Amino acid sequence: MSTSLFERLGGNDGITRLTSDLVDNHLANPTIATRFAKGNIPALKQAAASFMISGTGGDNVYKGKDMLAAHKGMNIAAAEFMAVLDDALDAMTKNDVGQREQEEVLFVLYSMRANIVRV
Amino acid sequence: MSTSLFERLGGNDGITRLTSDLVDNHLANPTIATRFAKGNIPALKQAAASFMISGTGGDNVYKGKDMLAAHKGMNIAAAEFMAVLDDALDAMTKNDVGQREQEEVLFVLYSMRANIVRV
Amino acid sequence: MSTSLFERLGGNDGITRLTSDLVDNHLANPTIATRFAKGNIPALKQAAASFMISGTGGDNVYKGKDMLAAHKGMNIAAAEFMAVLDDALDAMTKNDVGQREQEEVLFVLYSMRANIVRV
Amino acid sequence: MSTSLFERLGGNDGITRLTSDLVDNHLANPTIATRFAKGNIPALKQAAASFMISGTGGDNVYKGKDMLAAHKGMNIAAAEFMAVLDDALDAMTKNDVGQREQEEVLFVLYSMRANIVRV
Repeated sequence: MSTSLFERLGGNDGITRLTSDLVDNHLANPTIATRFAKGNIPALKQAAASFMISGTGGDNVYKGKDMLAAHKGMNIAAAEFMAVLDDALDAMTKNDVGQREQEEVLFVLYSMRANIVRV
Repeated sequence: MSTSLFERLGGNDGITRLTSDLVDNHLANPTIATRFAKGNIPALKQAAASFMISGTGGDNVYKGKDMLAAHKGMNIAAAEFMAVLDDALDAMTKNDVGQREQEEVLFVLYSMRANIVRV
Repeated sequence: MSTSLFERLGGNDGITRLTSDLVDNHLANPTIATRFAKGNIPALKQAAASFMISGTGGDNVYKGKDMLAAHKGMNIAAAEFMAVLDDALDAMTKNDVGQREQEEVLFVLYSMRANIVRV
Repeated sequence: MSTSLFERLGGNDGITRLTSDLVDNHLANPTIATRFAKGNIPALKQAAASFMISGTGGDNVYKGKDMLAAHKGMNIAAAEFMAVLDDALDAMTKNDVGQREQEEVLFVLYSMRANIVRV
């Protein structure tokens, strides 16, 4: 496919909406909401957006920690990681992201598990 | 894409090899091996193959239980479900399945979680 | 303490009531209820009673499997084991079992974890 | 029993040794070690000692957070909580704490679960 995932997800605007919905889903998800109790939500949304923009072929705007450093010491369980994936799929459906793109995003997210779960 | 996932996975032979490797991975995976301690492994491999053949566009040969009935009462944890996905990705890589097909298979497998995890 | 735990728990009658309440708690506990979906509940209650009678100093009436054989292959998670302990403490409180006896029972139950969790 | 648990655990010195071993066990326990990766270990040991001294009938020296505040947002799993209990039992055995005292300590620790697990 010639068009980048970044473009197919709606570019900066599409991804910013998508990751905002994603974080909102997390805040409402009983399996993981408590992880965000003390968090700076606007900063988190911005980090999520810039991470996804950089990772899907947009400008390289992510300045945050790498995935391992970001999750080190949190002892994130498999059930929590799956909650994140569920929230991502839900946010994509809510934003009319097609199945092909959902497959690609799920694959990329799942590929990060070794840097996120129980690290 | 015009070719069915069934064909792109190598048809009956490719899928039979793939699911045989998948079950072998499960037997060697400490997170879930114990689930198969009393199982009939050849029958399990055959069921896995026929399920995947039916589900990807081959002949409708699966005669087993639906996913919910097959897992009801087992109280499968998220960590166990992720172990299954990990084993599937590993088996696909071992069988030279391309990334596009791995994305599709992962998406389908993940979509079954509501009928498998904690049911 | 000179009186056996069996006697302090009310002997055959007390323990039979206690384990009946325990199993009822399990059936109502969302973390583990599904494990009993296909179970023979009266037989399970009887096994639980005879196990506890034998283990606390009553007659040696337990004829069931040892703990490891009984749980082998079930892949019981820590959260499920804790649900069992919670149900036991609740059943004891409901049956006016004193704190000293609850401490003893909890200690004995917890000591079985290596034969129950993820075996 | 007329002697306080504090005295039966060896007073300030006994409990300080015990909680130091407890924290050392945590640092070596793969299920929870990562939680302490960025921690101040001497401060943690001191907090654990003063918490246990206060809680068992010694001087009221604990100045730290209450259990709920201390664990809020950490999303501690059942498997992690059991790892803590296991480490406590091991540390008590290593320090020749009697079974009666181990039962009492286990009961008290377990009673804190609602302020620690998934809060």
